[in-house]
Amino acid sequence: MRKGIYLENTPLAEALKLWADMIASEGIGPLGGESVPVADSLGRITAEAIFAKLSSPFYHSSAMDGYAVRFAETFGASESDPRRLRLGEETVYVDTGDPLPDGFNAVIMIEDINVIEGSQGQGHIEIIKPAAPWQHVRVIGEDIVSTELIVPENHRMRPVDIGAIISGGHLEVSVRRRPRVVIIPTGSEIVEPGTDLKKGDIIEYNSRILSALVIEWGGLPLRFKPVPDNIGKIKDAINEGCDRGDLIVINAGSSAGSEDFTAKVIAELGEVLLHGINIKPGKPVILGRVKGKPVLGIPGYPVSTYITFNLFAKDLVYKWQGLEGPDPEFMKARLSRQVASSLGQEEFLRVKLGRVGQNLIATPVSRGAGVLMSLVRADGIVRIPAMSEGFGAGTEVDVEMLRGKKDVENTVVCIGSHDNALDILANVLKKNHTAFSLSSAHVGSMGGLIALKKGEAHMAGTHLLDEETGEYNISYIKKILGHRKMLLINLVYRQQGLMVPKGNPKNIQGFGDLTRENVVFINRQTGAGTRLLTDKYLKELGIAPKDVRGYEREEYTHMGVASAVLTGIADTGMGILASAEALGLDFIPLAKERYDLAIPADFVEMPALSAILQIIRQSGEFRTSVEALGGYDISDMGKVMYES
Amino acid sequence: MRKGIYLENTPLAEALKLWADMIASEGIGPLGGESVPVADSLGRITAEAIFAKLSSPFYHSSAMDGYAVRFAETFGASESDPRRLRLGEETVYVDTGDPLPDGFNAVIMIEDINVIEGSQGQGHIEIIKPAAPWQHVRVIGEDIVSTELIVPENHRMRPVDIGAIISGGHLEVSVRRRPRVVIIPTGSEIVEPGTDLKKGDIIEYNSRILSALVIEWGGLPLRFKPVPDNIGKIKDAINEGCDRGDLIVINAGSSAGSEDFTAKVIAELGEVLLHGINIKPGKPVILGRVKGKPVLGIPGYPVSTYITFNLFAKDLVYKWQGLEGPDPEFMKARLSRQVASSLGQEEFLRVKLGRVGQNLIATPVSRGAGVLMSLVRADGIVRIPAMSEGFGAGTEVDVEMLRGKKDVENTVVCIGSHDNALDILANVLKKNHTAFSLSSAHVGSMGGLIALKKGEAHMAGTHLLDEETGEYNISYIKKILGHRKMLLINLVYRQQGLMVPKGNPKNIQGFGDLTRENVVFINRQTGAGTRLLTDKYLKELGIAPKDVRGYEREEYTHMGVASAVLTGIADTGMGILASAEALGLDFIPLAKERYDLAIPADFVEMPALSAILQIIRQSGEFRTSVEALGGYDISDMGKVMYES
Repeated sequence: MRKGIYLENTPLAEALKLWADMIASEGIGPLGGESVPVADSLGRITAEAIFAKLSSPFYHSSAMDGYAVRFAETFGASESDPRRLRLGEETVYVDTGDPLPDGFNAVIMIEDINVIEGSQGQGHIEIIKPAAPWQHVRVIGEDIVSTELIVPENHRMRPVDIGAIISGGHLEVSVRRRPRVVIIPTGSEIVEPGTDLKKGDIIEYNSRILSALVIEWGGLPLRFKPVPDNIGKIKDAINEGCDRGDLIVINAGSSAGSEDFTAKVIAELGEVLLHGINIKPGKPVILGRVKGKPVLGIPGYPVSTYITFNLFAKDLVYKWQGLEGPDPEFMKARLSRQVASSLGQEEFLRVKLGRVGQNLIATPVSRGAGVLMSLVRADGIVRIPAMSEGFGAGTEVDVEMLRGKKDVENTVVCIGSHDNALDILANVLKKNHTAFSLSSAHVGSMGGLIALKKGEAHMAGTHLLDEETGEYNISYIKKILGHRKMLLINLVYRQQGLMVPKGNPKNIQGFGDLTRENVVFINRQTGAGTRLLTDKYLKELGIAPKDVRGYEREEYTHMGVASAVLTGIADTGMGILASAEALGLDFIPLAKERYDLAIPADFVEMPALSAILQIIRQSGEFRTSVEALGGYDISDMGKVMYES
Repeated sequence: MRKGIYLENTPLAEALKLWADMIASEGIGPLGGESVPVADSLGRITAEAIFAKLSSPFYHSSAMDGYAVRFAETFGASESDPRRLRLGEETVYVDTGDPLPDGFNAVIMIEDINVIEGSQGQGHIEIIKPAAPWQHVRVIGEDIVSTELIVPENHRMRPVDIGAIISGGHLEVSVRRRPRVVIIPTGSEIVEPGTDLKKGDIIEYNSRILSALVIEWGGLPLRFKPVPDNIGKIKDAINEGCDRGDLIVINAGSSAGSEDFTAKVIAELGEVLLHGINIKPGKPVILGRVKGKPVLGIPGYPVSTYITFNLFAKDLVYKWQGLEGPDPEFMKARLSRQVASSLGQEEFLRVKLGRVGQNLIATPVSRGAGVLMSLVRADGIVRIPAMSEGFGAGTEVDVEMLRGKKDVENTVVCIGSHDNALDILANVLKKNHTAFSLSSAHVGSMGGLIALKKGEAHMAGTHLLDEETGEYNISYIKKILGHRKMLLINLVYRQQGLMVPKGNPKNIQGFGDLTRENVVFINRQTGAGTRLLTDKYLKELGIAPKDVRGYEREEYTHMGVASAVLTGIADTGMGILASAEALGLDFIPLAKERYDLAIPADFVEMPALSAILQIIRQSGEFRTSVEALGGYDISDMGKVMYES
C-alpha cells in the first residue's frame, strides 16, 4: 500500500505550457487527408485546397425560356421593321437551362416575340428588337471556371461547399482524418451500465461524457472496455491505445492512492511530465508521453473528469483538424453570495445565471467534484484565481458559458423553499414553451424572500407560518419586502410530517420520540419553513435542540431529508408527503401548510414568468401531475392570496 | 407547350403566414419519441422528462483515502488523550470511492491518523480528534437522488446529460424522432455526379446541399433518385414521399415553363396553396399540401434553391423537434457601392464583409441565381425590401451572417486587380494560419486604389503603367492616395499577352489582327490595368475601339477572359500567361509588367495582414506554387517598391 505520496501542485498555466511544449516537440499538427464522398463531407475539414475540375455550366445554356438566335441575324429589327426568323433554322425554342444549339449566341425571351403560323419546327417568330451578343445566355463558367479555387485547405465543409465541389466535377474530397482519442476507463469497481449492481460498484459513464465531447469537437472516440486496477492490464491497454489512437486518456487512477497505478504505468512505458495541478476540482492530472503520443491521466470524479479533459484535450483535438477551437463565450455577472476558496488552488466554480431586472446574477451550485448534476444544472463556470481566497457577495465575475446567452435571458429564477411541484412546473414549462426555463435554487423560505429583496430572483417559494396571526407568508413579505409591490400566489397546500423508513421500525409517532436514545433525526437548514415548523413543535413540547440527536445535521431539500431517512443516515426527518412517497417512505402527518409563490409585481410581464403563471392557473397537465405526487391540495392553485 | 403562365407575386411575409397556418391546421408539432441508447443520444432532443431511477452514489462511500470509523466511538479523542481504534473491527481502511462498511458512518483522512503496529487488519490507528457524523462520506444520493428530474422534455442532450442519465440508472432514453425530409430532384436533364457528361446534362448537386442543411438542422434527409420531367413519375415520387417523409421537397420544375410539372402534380394529388413569391432570387416557389403533409416546390437555380429551402423548411424541421430555430446572427455594415434592385421584389443580396479600420464594409458579390459560388464566397445576406429600389453607397445595412463574426474580423480584404497568385496566397494563408482569411474582389487596379482611399480594403493589387515615366503604380498612388502613408510591395512580374484557342486557329499574331472581320475580341473592364494596356496598344497602332469586334463586352478577371476564349465566346483577349496556361490556351506574349500590392501603412500591424506579408517574403511553399502557375518572375517578391 502506497500512502502519503503527495501530488505536485503545478500552476495551471505552467502545466498547459508543459503540455503545449511537448506537443510541439513531437511535431504534432494537422493530420493528413482521407478521401470521402463529397456528399458525406459535411462539417469535415479540407486537407487540401479544392480547385474546380469542370466549369459550371460546362456548356452555354439558356438563362430564360425563349428562342435561341444568332445575334448577327437580328440586327436592324425594330417595331417599324420587324424581323422574321425561321423556326428550326434561324431560331430554336429553348427552356431555361437548355444548351444553346451550336452556332447560336443569344436568347430572346418568350415575352418579346410573336410566333407566326404553326408550332415549333414549322413557322416563324417575329422580333422587334435586335438581340445583344450573348444576352440571356449562361455562358460556360458563369458559376465556376475550371481550375478556380472553390475552398482552401483547412476549411470546414458547409452545405453550399458540398454543392459547389460536386458542381466543380469532384466525387470525393480530401478531408483531415478525424483525430482518434482512445478513452480507457479503469478501476476494479467500475461496471458497465446495465450490470446487476452490488454495493461498491460504480457505473461507468465518464467515458460516455468524454466520447460525446470528442464527437462535439470533431474527433473520433475509441472507447476501451473498463480495465481493472491491475498494472499489467493498464499497461496493455495503454500500449494498444498508442497503436490505435492519437491521444490516449486514462480515467482514473490518476491520484496517489493505494490503487492509483496510472502514473506508475505511464512512467514505465514512457515519461510522466507532470503529476498534479493546482486546480479544484481536478488536481490529480497526469501529463505524459508514451511512444511519442500524448497520454493524459485524469481523475475519476465526474466534474474533475470533465474540467480536466476540456483543459488538456480540447485544443489538441482542434489542432489535429487544422482548426483553432471556438472562443468560449463569456457573460459578466454578480455573485449572489460570498464564495470562499482555498488559497493556492484555482477553483472552477459552477454557477447558475439569471437576469433579474438589470442584473445578471450568478449563484453558485454544489461545489463537490462528485456532483455531476452541478454541471448539468450550471449555466457557466467562474474561475477563482489560485491567489484569491474567494469573492465577496456582489463581486462582478466573468462567467464562461455552458448554456446559450439567450437561454439565460429566458430563464425564470426561483429561489426559496423547495417543493417537488417546482420540478413538475419546470418540466411543463419547457415542454410547452421550448425557449423558456425555470431554474430553482433551494435556500429555504426566508432565504427566498431575502433573495427577492436583493434583486437575485424573480420569484420565491415560501411557507412561513406567522405563529401570532396563524397566517402564512404575508407578514414576512410585509416585513422583508414592504417597500415593494408584491403578488402572492398560492401554488399548493401540502402535508408536512415526519418521514420514517417503510414499516416504521423504530415506531416513531411524533416529535416526542425525537429525544429517544436510539432515534437519530435529520434537520433542515435555518430559514427553511420546515425548520421553523420543526422548532415550533420542539418548543411546544419543551424539547431542547441539544436533546435531539442529529439536530445539527442539515439538509437543504425535502428530497435530501427523505434520502437520508431511506439510506439510514437518520431515522426520521420533517418533510412533505410527496417526498416520502417518492422514495417509498412511511409518513406521520403533522400539519397541512400553505405553499405560495411570492413575485415582485414588476416581473409579472416577463414572458417566461407570465407563461409560468398561465400554467399554474390553467394547465390541466400541471394539476394532474402535481396531484399524482401525493399529499397536495390544489384547490387554491393560482389564487392571489395577497397583493400589495 | 404551356407558355405565358405567369406566377403569382405574393409578398414573402404573406407566404410565410399561409405556410404557418397550413402547418397549424394540420396539427403539426413536436414528433413522438423513439428509444435510443443513452450513449448515442448526443444532440438529440428529449421527448419526455428524464427522472433518476437510481440514486448516485447508491451506497455510502468514502470521499477520501482514509479510515472508516463509527463516529460515536471517536468522541473524546484529543491531542492530550489520543484514541486508539482496532483495525478491522473499530476501523477499516478505505480508498476514495470504496463503500463504507456496514455500520460505519464517518471517514478520517489518512493524513490525520497514525497507524500503530503492523498493517491493515492487525494493528491500531491512533486519532487525536473526534470524527463528525458522516464526515468525508459521499452519502447515497449526494449527486442524484432517485426520482429527481435530470433533464426536462425538449432538452438537447449534451455530454454531461449523457453521463447523468446513465448514472441515474437509464440505458436508453426517449428522444424525438428526427423529422424526415424527402428530397426529390427532378428534371430530364439532371444526371448523377460521375456520369459521363454530354452537352445539356446538369450535374445533380442541389439535393446534396439540401440534405446537408437538413442534417445541420437535426433532421433526416431522404434523398430520392432524380426523376425525369414526367407527370406520372413525379406523381409516383410525391406519393412515395408522402408515405415516407414528414416534409416533401421537389426541386425543381416549380416555375411555369413547358416542362414545369410540379405545381400541376401537387394540385392533382392535393392542393397548391400558392405559386410564386415576390423574392429574388427564388420567385417560383410552390407551397402545397398532399395527404395532410406539407409539400414544397422550389426552383432549381442553386442560390434560389438554398434561399427558399431555408425560408420554408428550416423552422419546420426545428418545430418537429420541439425546438425554436437558432436566432440568425446579424452585423451592421456599410455598403461599398450602390445597389439597384427591382421595385416589388424582396432581394437577397449576397455580400462579402471586411473590417477596415473602424468600418465594417459590405461588398456585393455576383447576384445571379445560378452562381452558387456567390454563396460559397459570401459572408452574409442583405435583404433589400420589396418597396425599395435599392441602396446608395455607404448605406448602413443589416447583414445576416453566413460566416462567424470572428472570421470576418480576421479577414484581409483585397480589392483591385486580379491575379491568379492571389488565390494561391489565400490558400497558403488559410493552410498556415487557420484563423485568417484573404478575401479578394476584382474591380481592376484603379478600382482597388479608390477602394483603399474610401476605406473599403486593406490592400489592393495593382499594375498601372504610367506611360510618361514608364514606372508602375507609384504615380497613381501619389495621385489617389497622396494624403496617406503607403507601402508598395512587389508580388510578381508577369507576362501579359493575347490568349487564343489551342493551335491559334485564326492565326492571330498581335493587336493588328483585332480589326479583322472574323476576329471577335473580349475586353476587360474600365479601370483594369489590363484594359489600360489594351487601350495603349490600340492607340499606338491607331486602331479605333469601334473597329474591334467585341470591344464592348467586358470581363472582370483574367480567368473570365480565358474562359470566354476557351468556350468560343471570343477568339482572343488580353490577359496573363498563368490564366492561359490554366485553361490550356495558346498565348502571344506582348509585355512583362509589374504587379504590386498597395497597402496603407496603418494596416501592416494587423495580425492577418502581417501573416500575409510574412508569406510573401518568406514562404517557399508560396513561391514554388506561384512559379508553377507559369509566366511569373518572382525575383522581387516581397520587395518594397515605394514607401511614403
